[in-house]
Amino acid sequence: MPTFVQILDFIGTFAFAISGIRLASAKRFDWFGAYVVGFVTAIGGGTIRDLLLDVTPGWMTDPIYLICTGLALGWVILFGKYLIHLNNTFFIFDSIGLALFTVVGVGKSLSLGYPFWVAIIMGSFTGAAGGVIRDVFINEIPLIFRKEIYAMACVVGGAVYWFCDITGMESYGCQIVSGMTVFVVRILAVKYKVTLPILKGHE
Amino acid sequence: MPTFVQILDFIGTFAFAISGIRLASAKRFDWFGAYVVGFVTAIGGGTIRDLLLDVTPGWMTDPIYLICTGLALGWVILFGKYLIHLNNTFFIFDSIGLALFTVVGVGKSLSLGYPFWVAIIMGSFTGAAGGVIRDVFINEIPLIFRKEIYAMACVVGGAVYWFCDITGMESYGCQIVSGMTVFVVRILAVKYKVTLPILKGHE
Amino acid sequence: MPTFVQILDFIGTFAFAISGIRLASAKRFDWFGAYVVGFVTAIGGGTIRDLLLDVTPGWMTDPIYLICTGLALGWVILFGKYLIHLNNTFFIFDSIGLALFTVVGVGKSLSLGYPFWVAIIMGSFTGAAGGVIRDVFINEIPLIFRKEIYAMACVVGGAVYWFCDITGMESYGCQIVSGMTVFVVRILAVKYKVTLPILKGHE
Repeated sequence: MPTFVQILDFIGTFAFAISGIRLASAKRFDWFGAYVVGFVTAIGGGTIRDLLLDVTPGWMTDPIYLICTGLALGWVILFGKYLIHLNNTFFIFDSIGLALFTVVGVGKSLSLGYPFWVAIIMGSFTGAAGGVIRDVFINEIPLIFRKEIYAMACVVGGAVYWFCDITGMESYGCQIVSGMTVFVVRILAVKYKVTLPILKGHE
Repeated sequence: MPTFVQILDFIGTFAFAISGIRLASAKRFDWFGAYVVGFVTAIGGGTIRDLLLDVTPGWMTDPIYLICTGLALGWVILFGKYLIHLNNTFFIFDSIGLALFTVVGVGKSLSLGYPFWVAIIMGSFTGAAGGVIRDVFINEIPLIFRKEIYAMACVVGGAVYWFCDITGMESYGCQIVSGMTVFVVRILAVKYKVTLPILKGHE
Repeated sequence: MPTFVQILDFIGTFAFAISGIRLASAKRFDWFGAYVVGFVTAIGGGTIRDLLLDVTPGWMTDPIYLICTGLALGWVILFGKYLIHLNNTFFIFDSIGLALFTVVGVGKSLSLGYPFWVAIIMGSFTGAAGGVIRDVFINEIPLIFRKEIYAMACVVGGAVYWFCDITGMESYGCQIVSGMTVFVVRILAVKYKVTLPILKGHE
């Protein structure tokens, strides 16, 4: 029986892979290219984190991420034209993935003995760096650098984790509060169109 | 005396470096930029593989790859205008490189104790990821995501390696059959213009 | 009390971060995106070096690089429109950073037992690779592949380090002579518009 966290992890991976595959399809990638972009979107952030933490990336120890990306590709091939009606559903799934990946990244870094400020960065990498690689591969400026609160939700969630830890909360409680924060910040930011200021160019 | 594999490795590195240098010249890079792009095309895939496997990249232990890239640059500077007549020769060299790099990647991963499905991915990285970095550096969408059977030849070759191993074949035999498979799949795919389906965008 | 090298390191990091943030502002990134690009410009080269050398990246052990990037972002937000008058100052700072980062990269590699030709490459990565990642993120062809003597100044400085070492000079002396070489080569190349030849395309 998969645990609750494993189910959330699968949902998040699926949603991230779908986001990569859909952007690849808009650029007319072939099936192989779409699969690779979907896979990298899903596991890219965690891989960079694990290279920096000097541990073996999770997807090299469990083929579930490869299989999950394959299912996402099959889904888009079969039901692609209906996906646009599911945009809200995928937005929710993507936000679940973002929240879970952030919490996993923070927790893994802390368990390896890194200080909190490193853990917050690693949590943000886990949640947001896959999308940056995706955008580099499809030759676009990474979306998270210009639009919407995305990685900032990870940073806020990581800071909340830290705060909960300082107050003496159990790590299980920290994780739930932190994950909920990422999810809520992301949802509210999109709903109320909250954005960061643009840096004006003077050149 | 170099071994047969070392000679093939040199030929493959040379062909990969030439491919990077020629694309850099089409973008009017300077000699330094062309050298870097050639070098990264040749060693980028193996470097990503070795970072993931947590071993020292091969080019950091033997300067032959730097020298080989230098020879490739000198060749393009001196004989660039005749290269176009050698396109078929370089296509053969490139396919030899692809086959050899794939087999080296699969073999190295297996010898480090990784399961076969990881080894196949690592073989494909070794063969194809250098070209992805090359295309990111020249600011193009990676060619292998949109055109031709390239990395798929590595995947097929890796799967054949696995199958040979299951049948109890010696590792030397597995490597020869696997490498021949990559080479033949690549050559046939180009000759008969076999491509993967494009993923249709619905947005 | 910070040491002289720490002060130079701070100046170099600040100048590199400013260069990333200014290019991000020209692309209308938001504050978060500009911060990330500034940070990656400053620490990207050293991070790639440390991944290849299999040691923990420096910025994961000391938050000074995060703080320094934050100061650089605040500076650009507050004084952005005056920065253009300071272009010469930042050019000097950037050249100091380039020289220092190169020497640090060479020295770190040698202290880990790598041969000199690896150390020269690592010194060049430390100085120049952050700018390559910056340019990939803003979706431009990396500047150093096409214009000016930049990474070549690192290579020359690294070779001078090697030469000084062969002559029996103390490592402290090697570092000063090497760093001065990088700085002077960079300044002279820009002042006299020395460039490498462009590789002509024939296709």
